[in-house]
Amino acid sequence: MQAVKVGLLGLGTVGGGTATVLLRNADEIQRRVGRAIEITHVAGLGIAGQTIVDPAKVRLTEDAFEVVNDPEVQIVVELIGGYTLAKALVMKAIENGKHVVTANKALIATHGPEIMQAAMAKGVSVCYEAAVAGGIPIIKALREGLAANRIQWIAGIINGTGNFILTEMRDKGRNFDDVLKEAQQLGYAEADPTFDVEGIDAAHKLTILASLAFGIELQFDKCYTEGISRITTDDVNYAGQLGYRIKHLGITRMTENGIEMRVHPTLIPEKRLIANVDGVMNAVLVYGDAVGPTLYYGAGAGAEPTASAVVADIIDTVRAIDCAAQQKVPLLGFRPDAMSSTPVLPMEDTQTAYYLRICAQDKPGVLAQISNIFATHHISIEAVLQKEPAEGQSMVSLILLTQKVQERNMNNAIAEIEALGSIQGEVIRIRMEHLK
Amino acid sequence: MQAVKVGLLGLGTVGGGTATVLLRNADEIQRRVGRAIEITHVAGLGIAGQTIVDPAKVRLTEDAFEVVNDPEVQIVVELIGGYTLAKALVMKAIENGKHVVTANKALIATHGPEIMQAAMAKGVSVCYEAAVAGGIPIIKALREGLAANRIQWIAGIINGTGNFILTEMRDKGRNFDDVLKEAQQLGYAEADPTFDVEGIDAAHKLTILASLAFGIELQFDKCYTEGISRITTDDVNYAGQLGYRIKHLGITRMTENGIEMRVHPTLIPEKRLIANVDGVMNAVLVYGDAVGPTLYYGAGAGAEPTASAVVADIIDTVRAIDCAAQQKVPLLGFRPDAMSSTPVLPMEDTQTAYYLRICAQDKPGVLAQISNIFATHHISIEAVLQKEPAEGQSMVSLILLTQKVQERNMNNAIAEIEALGSIQGEVIRIRMEHLK
Repeated sequence: MQAVKVGLLGLGTVGGGTATVLLRNADEIQRRVGRAIEITHVAGLGIAGQTIVDPAKVRLTEDAFEVVNDPEVQIVVELIGGYTLAKALVMKAIENGKHVVTANKALIATHGPEIMQAAMAKGVSVCYEAAVAGGIPIIKALREGLAANRIQWIAGIINGTGNFILTEMRDKGRNFDDVLKEAQQLGYAEADPTFDVEGIDAAHKLTILASLAFGIELQFDKCYTEGISRITTDDVNYAGQLGYRIKHLGITRMTENGIEMRVHPTLIPEKRLIANVDGVMNAVLVYGDAVGPTLYYGAGAGAEPTASAVVADIIDTVRAIDCAAQQKVPLLGFRPDAMSSTPVLPMEDTQTAYYLRICAQDKPGVLAQISNIFATHHISIEAVLQKEPAEGQSMVSLILLTQKVQERNMNNAIAEIEALGSIQGEVIRIRMEHLK
Repeated sequence: MQAVKVGLLGLGTVGGGTATVLLRNADEIQRRVGRAIEITHVAGLGIAGQTIVDPAKVRLTEDAFEVVNDPEVQIVVELIGGYTLAKALVMKAIENGKHVVTANKALIATHGPEIMQAAMAKGVSVCYEAAVAGGIPIIKALREGLAANRIQWIAGIINGTGNFILTEMRDKGRNFDDVLKEAQQLGYAEADPTFDVEGIDAAHKLTILASLAFGIELQFDKCYTEGISRITTDDVNYAGQLGYRIKHLGITRMTENGIEMRVHPTLIPEKRLIANVDGVMNAVLVYGDAVGPTLYYGAGAGAEPTASAVVADIIDTVRAIDCAAQQKVPLLGFRPDAMSSTPVLPMEDTQTAYYLRICAQDKPGVLAQISNIFATHHISIEAVLQKEPAEGQSMVSLILLTQKVQERNMNNAIAEIEALGSIQGEVIRIRMEHLK
């Protein structure tokens, strides 16, 4: 059989990794697929100096549109990232009848509906395994491996930079800014770390996971997003004393009223396997009604781990290249005519337990005042920890763990507590999940 | 589109779970697949009294051959277990042009080659996701999700009963026999626990994983198999003091000389995520050259977790039911004409580190004698722990950790040590892996 012809857009970290893996493992891959996969075109800025692919065999260009418009190319692999150009290229590739593989989570999360619709109309596939959790085949697990289940919830460590920072804060007692600087030096975090530490990257990924889990449209704008930049070593330590670890989780859950979709720092019991996922590693915990909890762990970023997912998508595309569209797995796991309109809940309507830290005057009656406010809002307290004031200071730290409560009730209770004269500053709140 | 018609063979734990999941999640599954999946036939002994499927809609029979011979049935789901009858039924189903889904690890590991060959000749598929690690979609991960990689090694906790026993021994200091009895009462272990505790069940599963990882034929007879029945609480405790946990692992590894394939108790560093997989849960750690380590965790047994995998296979089969055979994923992940003849190594030719416990006289010179023997056989010692004799006893326990060495060398060294006059009884050996 003839080789399948692939055009790569981008030869940076992931593009370079993809070319490297495809070339190095060409024979192993052919043993699996039964035909060769050939990189015939590569587009990239400053591509002339590249040393990864053989210029005698591969057409190199700085103009990515040349690749998506070349009739010879059968599969376009978009690895340039970003929104505008990437979107234009992907849409053009689809228009030209080419299958698309992309690692671009921002693109899928925000322009996915338009892209998927164009692809379905044209009968081509759009694969994006590398867009969530790098090399972990979590998209495949959700679309296929767990297809027998009604998914109940997903909780994932889906941003390696954030997990690295929280791990270092816990293990070495370092503060956020200090570790962030190191993460940037190590190349884990971008010069502008906002996407990682403020949770936007994780929210892109969670949007995709929620769509795959519940068969809803991609709705990035509905995702509640809170980063880790306000987490202090104090909170990390207090959590540890109570048997919890703080992880930056993306959580999506089907409830009676709608779907929760939220990214935020979260206390989880240290005994859970996912609480022990450290450093830059990613993990996704999925709860299905039949299978119960399953967990998928691996590298969430990096050249070759991401390439592993990109190339798996290329292989899937090649294997099914002559299949009719209706015989393939639907792009979002559910048939386009069977998407659900279950709404994504506003954050105020979600339910979770809480860790709260309150800086209060060390005098009788303060805890009673606070307890009364919680009682008024139907919030049950599960544990209280009081940290004595430092020498010469008059304020104590009260740490409280609550039972599950609606976010709206908690907002109201916190507003009342912050208005008390005996309280200093804001109430620190970190959500808490038992993941059972 | 017309419903796809499924015949179930067996309505026991897994068969009942499969019917329950297919019925309960019928609408969710149809949203994914685009057509209904209907159980039209069920075979089982004493089936008349069953209450899971509606006898008005499903043909019930005690004769499983009636199901595999019925022209109406498109997919046969074999869930009766065992070798002889199961094999005859599966072969007959294939002969009749039906697709097969099975959870039968023993059948695939021992009769797989014959079954696969018949299926390929007939152009039908044989799926067996539930045969390894229950609900964890590990077969799919190896055949598809990690298809870009050259797999280097796999290490798995793939028998829940064994893991439950070892977890209880560690957490509660209980001995093997005691926990085994409880496991039997809880229904985790069979009345005849040999398959579980002596590693035969794990060896069946490892045989399948090795074939999928490396593209070799299924070779159950080449798998080295050692159980956990000789593990003592002493060894569990000493391992813990040295920072290790004892897990019953199935390990397969590609080496320069051939493929290792072995099931045995193994010390692993307690910091590894897989060391923290406790109770009846399963986990498989896969190392690919591009992706690095990935881990898959979940329930390895039980009615609905196993059904989750069985039904996922049914869904895969339905989705691709009209695809040509060459467009499907090959049954063993690699094309039948591209299978590798890399040999499976005899156990003596494998390499691993060791934990050794030696009962020795408490007198000068004994450690020197032992050290000399190790030196002669090129075995490096990494750590020594000496446990003082109990009051009134003259023997000490010497615990040694070695570096990686060939099994043959270790056998020779142990034979010489056991021949020493200053040593009592056998040298206890447990293999050790760092899983990095």
